[in-house]
Amino acid sequence: MTALLPHPGAFAQGIFMYPVRVYYEDTDAGGIVYHADYLKFAERARTEFMRCLGWGHDRLVAELGVTWVVRRLQIDYRHPAKLGDCLVVSTVCDAIHGASIEMSQQIARGDTILTGLQLQIALLTPQGRPARVPAILTESLTPFLAQRTSQRPWTKHPSIQ
Amino acid sequence: MTALLPHPGAFAQGIFMYPVRVYYEDTDAGGIVYHADYLKFAERARTEFMRCLGWGHDRLVAELGVTWVVRRLQIDYRHPAKLGDCLVVSTVCDAIHGASIEMSQQIARGDTILTGLQLQIALLTPQGRPARVPAILTESLTPFLAQRTSQRPWTKHPSIQ
Amino acid sequence: MTALLPHPGAFAQGIFMYPVRVYYEDTDAGGIVYHADYLKFAERARTEFMRCLGWGHDRLVAELGVTWVVRRLQIDYRHPAKLGDCLVVSTVCDAIHGASIEMSQQIARGDTILTGLQLQIALLTPQGRPARVPAILTESLTPFLAQRTSQRPWTKHPSIQ
Amino acid sequence: MTALLPHPGAFAQGIFMYPVRVYYEDTDAGGIVYHADYLKFAERARTEFMRCLGWGHDRLVAELGVTWVVRRLQIDYRHPAKLGDCLVVSTVCDAIHGASIEMSQQIARGDTILTGLQLQIALLTPQGRPARVPAILTESLTPFLAQRTSQRPWTKHPSIQ
Repeated sequence: MTALLPHPGAFAQGIFMYPVRVYYEDTDAGGIVYHADYLKFAERARTEFMRCLGWGHDRLVAELGVTWVVRRLQIDYRHPAKLGDCLVVSTVCDAIHGASIEMSQQIARGDTILTGLQLQIALLTPQGRPARVPAILTESLTPFLAQRTSQRPWTKHPSIQ
Repeated sequence: MTALLPHPGAFAQGIFMYPVRVYYEDTDAGGIVYHADYLKFAERARTEFMRCLGWGHDRLVAELGVTWVVRRLQIDYRHPAKLGDCLVVSTVCDAIHGASIEMSQQIARGDTILTGLQLQIALLTPQGRPARVPAILTESLTPFLAQRTSQRPWTKHPSIQ
Repeated sequence: MTALLPHPGAFAQGIFMYPVRVYYEDTDAGGIVYHADYLKFAERARTEFMRCLGWGHDRLVAELGVTWVVRRLQIDYRHPAKLGDCLVVSTVCDAIHGASIEMSQQIARGDTILTGLQLQIALLTPQGRPARVPAILTESLTPFLAQRTSQRPWTKHPSIQ
Repeated sequence: MTALLPHPGAFAQGIFMYPVRVYYEDTDAGGIVYHADYLKFAERARTEFMRCLGWGHDRLVAELGVTWVVRRLQIDYRHPAKLGDCLVVSTVCDAIHGASIEMSQQIARGDTILTGLQLQIALLTPQGRPARVPAILTESLTPFLAQRTSQRPWTKHPSIQ
């Protein structure tokens, strides 16, 4: 049998798209996705975004000696997701600074954006100290830098092609 | 753009196979997957197993007036899964009783079985009362009934073809 | 045996203080608390804050016909929490609007603020439609309204006595 | 202000009792506690049981060079817990073997046992290899060894005084 692999997500016109199915574990007694679980969906997508660029966690640590953490995030909840929904998380990189990266993400069901996130990601050494963004990482990310638009997070992520 | 969908799993020689990627959310400070999170992986797989047979949660409630819950489970942890691992959950149905279903599941990384589960699944009415397994559900499941073997859960799930 | 109850939190000089212990379930392979789990700690504290004012989920639904949800939140991660840590979540109400409430929360270990949150909470009907903040709820919350200060979230929550 | 601490649980007639409140994070769209979350409640209780005997995670590693993991568990779900419930997890040690410990736990709401667990706990070195139960740990646990009864897990944990 050939390998059976989860969907790793894919770039479409410069935006990284990652699919998520909502299971019971993600819902709460309100019948909708628990508010903290959107952060999990978003992190799965960022992980695959980085892996798709060649920077899985292992390689980041082994070659660059860094790991990334969320330093700040804002999340807007517009519409709830429900059990069984198929969602898509779109991820773009907004800016690269000396020791941090700004990203924005949207979680949508079909054409409806349910949730928008803006994040500041920091790089840390394995000892937990701030690290500068290595030049080789900046190079990898630069082709996927999106123009920050004032309408975000509620305008659909534009193509950057 | 065509729809971007998570991998729904697939039957291979009568066994339902569902892939899972391990993310940070699934790990703990021991550096391995948190023991309760294997139950989440297993439930995702059972959900897709049922959906693959045509019995998503919505249809179960709408047409048969039932939902399923775990009544009992045993889980054996043999080897730990780690951050970034690609796992496959294999699921078989061992027996169908009047008001419950027995299933067994294995979570493997490549050829190594990490975790084995044996479950008793009960059907409930929306009011939470026990319900009999509807004949049409038994019909759906019967082709996928596996022979229970004493070696389980540590023998690899056999083909039932 | 008398009833054994979890600590429900308590007001101290107008600020609601709620204690949390960090368990394995809250940590990740980075050896620290998973970033989404601070949202769980914060929600436990808001739930107890409301219950302490007499507004448990049940009574909110039964008497006022509303439930509350997070509409927007910003969270800043300054220092990580670790396995076994005893944390305190402090919660204040910053403002009451027609159909939403602003709150801020801090998660501290001893004198060190680890994480700060700013939230906009909305009220919904059981059908998920926006609801106005009932007068009786405004009355309950008003004594605990804190002065918003520009230094937040990194200045310790001030006493409002 | 004196320290604000979560309830650490307590021994009552030889049984370790630990209280848990059910929050939104613990529930699912079925309106009840998600089946995997009982494992979290149970682990919080085992952690406090061990800490109460003087064996917090830190000391286990520092002094004995071991950590403990679940090797096998069986869980029976009899009645569901709901949002806002106050539960009590009772924990007893059933047996101490060369390299593992058997424990049983019950999760109850008032006089109703909702869930029963039987666990085999193994000790591991920091490198993940099996370790023998140190004599000093056996000494700590022995006074709290309960007689295994055939009625378990559905007979209430008996006093061992």
